[in-house]
Amino acid sequence: MRGSDSPGFPVREFHQRLRRAQDLMQQDGIAALLLTTEPEIRYFTGFLTRFWESPTRPWFVIVPVRGDPVAVIPAIGVPLMARGWISDIRSWDAPDYVDDGIGLLRAALCDLTADGARIGVPGGMESHVRMPLTSWRCLSERIGARSLGADGGIMRRLRLVKSPLEIAKIEAACRVADRAFARVPEIAGAGVALDQVFRGFQILCLDEGADWISYLAGGAGPGGYGDVISPATPRPLKTGDVLMLDTGVVRDGYFCDFDRNWSVGPPTPEIEDAFARLTAASAAGLAAARPGAEAADLYHAMADVLGPGCGGGRLGHGLGMQLTEWPSLIPADHTRLEPGMVLTLEPGYQLAAGRMLVHEENIVVTEAGARYLSTPAPPTIGRLEA
Amino acid sequence: MRGSDSPGFPVREFHQRLRRAQDLMQQDGIAALLLTTEPEIRYFTGFLTRFWESPTRPWFVIVPVRGDPVAVIPAIGVPLMARGWISDIRSWDAPDYVDDGIGLLRAALCDLTADGARIGVPGGMESHVRMPLTSWRCLSERIGARSLGADGGIMRRLRLVKSPLEIAKIEAACRVADRAFARVPEIAGAGVALDQVFRGFQILCLDEGADWISYLAGGAGPGGYGDVISPATPRPLKTGDVLMLDTGVVRDGYFCDFDRNWSVGPPTPEIEDAFARLTAASAAGLAAARPGAEAADLYHAMADVLGPGCGGGRLGHGLGMQLTEWPSLIPADHTRLEPGMVLTLEPGYQLAAGRMLVHEENIVVTEAGARYLSTPAPPTIGRLEA
Repeated sequence: MRGSDSPGFPVREFHQRLRRAQDLMQQDGIAALLLTTEPEIRYFTGFLTRFWESPTRPWFVIVPVRGDPVAVIPAIGVPLMARGWISDIRSWDAPDYVDDGIGLLRAALCDLTADGARIGVPGGMESHVRMPLTSWRCLSERIGARSLGADGGIMRRLRLVKSPLEIAKIEAACRVADRAFARVPEIAGAGVALDQVFRGFQILCLDEGADWISYLAGGAGPGGYGDVISPATPRPLKTGDVLMLDTGVVRDGYFCDFDRNWSVGPPTPEIEDAFARLTAASAAGLAAARPGAEAADLYHAMADVLGPGCGGGRLGHGLGMQLTEWPSLIPADHTRLEPGMVLTLEPGYQLAAGRMLVHEENIVVTEAGARYLSTPAPPTIGRLEA
Repeated sequence: MRGSDSPGFPVREFHQRLRRAQDLMQQDGIAALLLTTEPEIRYFTGFLTRFWESPTRPWFVIVPVRGDPVAVIPAIGVPLMARGWISDIRSWDAPDYVDDGIGLLRAALCDLTADGARIGVPGGMESHVRMPLTSWRCLSERIGARSLGADGGIMRRLRLVKSPLEIAKIEAACRVADRAFARVPEIAGAGVALDQVFRGFQILCLDEGADWISYLAGGAGPGGYGDVISPATPRPLKTGDVLMLDTGVVRDGYFCDFDRNWSVGPPTPEIEDAFARLTAASAAGLAAARPGAEAADLYHAMADVLGPGCGGGRLGHGLGMQLTEWPSLIPADHTRLEPGMVLTLEPGYQLAAGRMLVHEENIVVTEAGARYLSTPAPPTIGRLEA
């Protein structure tokens, strides 16, 4: 198995993020950001733990318009948070049935902002507020004339553009999946149950250096698959099936998100043609991904290659600390691309009702255009033993 | 690798859940439940997918006080939802930047409830509302004289008590982890980096039949570890270390959550004593876990055995579709135990500042008392090669 390089970021990375955030807050008249979810909190603190899997405890970080972030967190998280760069850590013994951190959070917000201040909470698409509704309502009523409103998209704007160190981490995750995908013929072929393929593929990802595998979906069926979000069934692969595996491997807190397809035995001309079209579509998406282009332009570049078989829905999305991030590659998304944006290109092709192929690559936008972070698939579909 | 048995539940299981829910809603005067999170939606529909890892799309299920649940979901989820028992599925092409499902959700809520009706949303501890804040505010303003309020703990009351089929799934997850823990000496010993131990252990879990591993934490250090939520570092295990691995393996949509400890080389008398005390504490917790006892009674039974070394915080919690669920084993939790409740017993012992041991088992409450779901650890700590 492959070892780790050193995790996390140097402190200057967090200083840069904070400065960018405070510039935007200043422009928008926001006195503080209130953050409640894993990626939002990790973005400013580096706090990386799988403990978020437990829904019991709420976690809060306040980013004031001036000064360093303040963590208001359950006591169980203090040793880990204290190993990072945040020095103002306020904690309580959670769960507390009388006051589960809301009094402490209220006091911190009132310390850090003036009465009448606007406090921004990420509130747009792809976000949620991770605290109980009753706590949220209690907090809203106890902060005086301050308002808890949407953050005007500040977190989105910050996280849309990745730093060079973030891009390196996403690329490292892509390398892990590259190596695991190359080894799929070791674990899959006619007669192997799909759920065993899923287990075997996760084993390959770990063996190649994944810290954990937060996402694996896929499908298999004769001449294509019906949907791409279902868990695996015990149905064995059969000659003539197309198998697709789509994984979000996590390495050092960052995701990759791409897929690969294989034909069990020789592919039919229909499958060969569709697969060649999908790889041509992702190449067209890459070519369109220049600074100044819109997310929608990538959609249209891929849809044009796919033609009438273009499977509805989005044809890619952002990628980073989460499996999927803004923007969406859809006609309505007019986000202008900038160097440092990391995207998936995910063209889908509908062969018939209940039968499709989906292909996916990961790219980063640079000054000169875009380059692949995943090692791009060749235009011929992979083969597994019949 | 071990294969799967058939996943999911017979439809009568969902009918029973719905009937219990509607009885409670009737008693509390709630016209409908509005559900937004993975376990809440899966509880009533059986909808199992790792696609929740993507934060892009909101998902909604409405449980009316009479009639079957209604799913209001993104189109990408319709094929999977339609394979289950829910027949009223309303969908939109998400993400939609003009209206991301809120118009459809509003219409469904207005179809299913009268003006002035109380709509319950899980809002207490260990819950959150998984939708953007701006969507939530928009919905709240558009449902006429209906109110969106807390659900009065209905979801908590329902999910606290597991059905026999749910218990069997949790037990199957425990068997997977039992077998993986028994094989840890194959992958861990002096000189092996902790992050490689974490990877190797996840491989063992998959090899023994885990569908995926949503949680793995642990620690290692000389004579004990400092915290139990940090990710692994590349520090190699050394003679005299105590290693702890704590896993939430998922099998068929249900978690186990227990840990095991090993001494690298022979344990010191201090470690031997502390470990014997921890297993005695969990045995005392098991003995106290009788129907009618309070969650707090289990805390006190374990704390009494631990004595002054009892490491603050809770000493266990509920377990099921989530890694941690209600109740908490703390002095303030007066939840009365009932047959069918599944709990972890998680005594911790503080040896010195920065040096502790934590032990954990899984149990189910029955009419006759409680029984282990994990195969309980013997009172002597495991050994790894020095």
